[in-house]
Amino acid sequence: MTRKQKLVLGADCGGTNLKLALIEPSGAILYSKRVPVNFTEAPQKVICGIGKEFKKFLKESRVSEILGIGMGIAGDVDQQKGIVRFSPNLNWKQVPLKQILSKEFPYPLLIENDANCAAWGAYCLDAKKDCKNLICLTLGTGIGGGIILNGKLFRGSRGSAGEIGHMTIEYRGRPCKCGNFGCTESMIGAWGLIQTAQDGLKKGLAPILKKILSKSKGIELNPETIEEAAAQGDGYCRQIWDEAGEILGCTLSNLVNLFNPDRIILCGGVSKARSWILKPALHTLAMRAFKTPLVSLRVSISQYDEKLGVVGAGLLFWE
Amino acid sequence: MTRKQKLVLGADCGGTNLKLALIEPSGAILYSKRVPVNFTEAPQKVICGIGKEFKKFLKESRVSEILGIGMGIAGDVDQQKGIVRFSPNLNWKQVPLKQILSKEFPYPLLIENDANCAAWGAYCLDAKKDCKNLICLTLGTGIGGGIILNGKLFRGSRGSAGEIGHMTIEYRGRPCKCGNFGCTESMIGAWGLIQTAQDGLKKGLAPILKKILSKSKGIELNPETIEEAAAQGDGYCRQIWDEAGEILGCTLSNLVNLFNPDRIILCGGVSKARSWILKPALHTLAMRAFKTPLVSLRVSISQYDEKLGVVGAGLLFWE
Repeated sequence: MTRKQKLVLGADCGGTNLKLALIEPSGAILYSKRVPVNFTEAPQKVICGIGKEFKKFLKESRVSEILGIGMGIAGDVDQQKGIVRFSPNLNWKQVPLKQILSKEFPYPLLIENDANCAAWGAYCLDAKKDCKNLICLTLGTGIGGGIILNGKLFRGSRGSAGEIGHMTIEYRGRPCKCGNFGCTESMIGAWGLIQTAQDGLKKGLAPILKKILSKSKGIELNPETIEEAAAQGDGYCRQIWDEAGEILGCTLSNLVNLFNPDRIILCGGVSKARSWILKPALHTLAMRAFKTPLVSLRVSISQYDEKLGVVGAGLLFWE
Repeated sequence: MTRKQKLVLGADCGGTNLKLALIEPSGAILYSKRVPVNFTEAPQKVICGIGKEFKKFLKESRVSEILGIGMGIAGDVDQQKGIVRFSPNLNWKQVPLKQILSKEFPYPLLIENDANCAAWGAYCLDAKKDCKNLICLTLGTGIGGGIILNGKLFRGSRGSAGEIGHMTIEYRGRPCKCGNFGCTESMIGAWGLIQTAQDGLKKGLAPILKKILSKSKGIELNPETIEEAAAQGDGYCRQIWDEAGEILGCTLSNLVNLFNPDRIILCGGVSKARSWILKPALHTLAMRAFKTPLVSLRVSISQYDEKLGVVGAGLLFWE
């Protein structure tokens, strides 16, 4: 692949993996790779390691030069200064990522919250043609969000807008990891769903789920096993999905009443429980939101899921 | 006042009154007036009456010509077509306001939701210099909102964005007039506060409030009397304000996590219960919202309250 086309290195930095891809301006991926990263080491060391991975990746892809790097990080980032202000997933606080990385890998760098990257990816790959206002929710262990308004990523005044997962839906509800109570994430993030399932197991309310988990030691309690138990007729697990759908529907309804978007795109692991969560969510949305913004709204699950973050990070570099 | 300056007629059309003002590009009011309007009559007749009031107003103010009219309406409006899609306050549905009014008063007309006008007024009068992203909440009988992003009124895809009062804060909560449950408005709109007070009175929990109301037949149960009872030591009424502050704080926290605004401005009748509602609201906000967006946020109560709607309506005409 010895070409001199203008390419950007897109990177998506989660809690355990680093996804890398060479991105064309169209959003097409020329070459991609996923490498494990050990984030328990000191940030300085981790970042030098990431720089080395970047070099190796370029060599492997036989691309001699790139325009720069667009990098998504699970956390609160200062895009202008290139600082990761806070990332609970990476266990970083006030890490001058740009400064450290530039010594190892001297290319222009843009850093951005990973959910914002996914939203930009979803917008560019799937919606740019016919849509101005889009909201993307990443339903995974946590719940992230990105907001596209008038065709631009909306970052707010200090770059931290779009924390959709930490919207209070039940103000006296479950404590969330963020310090708030009754956030969407605390109820329907994967960890919230697992907590609800555990509550049921303790009370002996989820016999089929219990049976599935006891089949072998390798089987984990996670959204997939809760889905399997629901599919096999576990009443408590079905209720978990019904309620999760209701909470998701309330969250969407709040977004619709506030933003009146053209589209909402869902992605991430939990969104794969499509039939279980989407039906009650759309029902709740239709019941609760204002009618005018509902008329033109389209809610869908992204078909590009896995690559949204890395493509969005790369494409944001061009913006 | 026989001048040929470029002026706009600002109008703020509530459920019982029509506020009128001649607005300069600076936002200064040259002449203003408030007239009662009987909205129980057919829309056609009401609008012709409004047109006549406009003419009378111009004559009184001795201004021979205006550039146009900016008009705020309590309801869901289609700005582009000049149609009031739905206004529960005026009891209007799909009313072609622009078309009807143009026969009586043939000037260019802009119509906009009244809370959006108030937000634009708050932005122009108080915040334009040092602020890009501002959210304005009107705390009255209902709770309205307007959102200014990157220095522009944000309307969403069909013009209905900004329904902050209908954000679900307690998803199994009190039924709201909008069809949803546990909206901010259902709990801390004036009607929500009154309902909570009535619940207490029925249970004999608010003795001081009861005494105040029984003093004379003219005294109404409203936020002011609930405030008075709280000031006189009524424990139940104090609790009403504490909880109202908490709900308001949750609402602000959601807005801060979503929009990361520079400023939030509160206006409307309920915001006048300043000491009772603002303290618990700010406490809750500090506890619940993300820290990064809180650093640069300023929350205040508007000093221009009464005129925000009419000035904002006029100034929006120039946009």
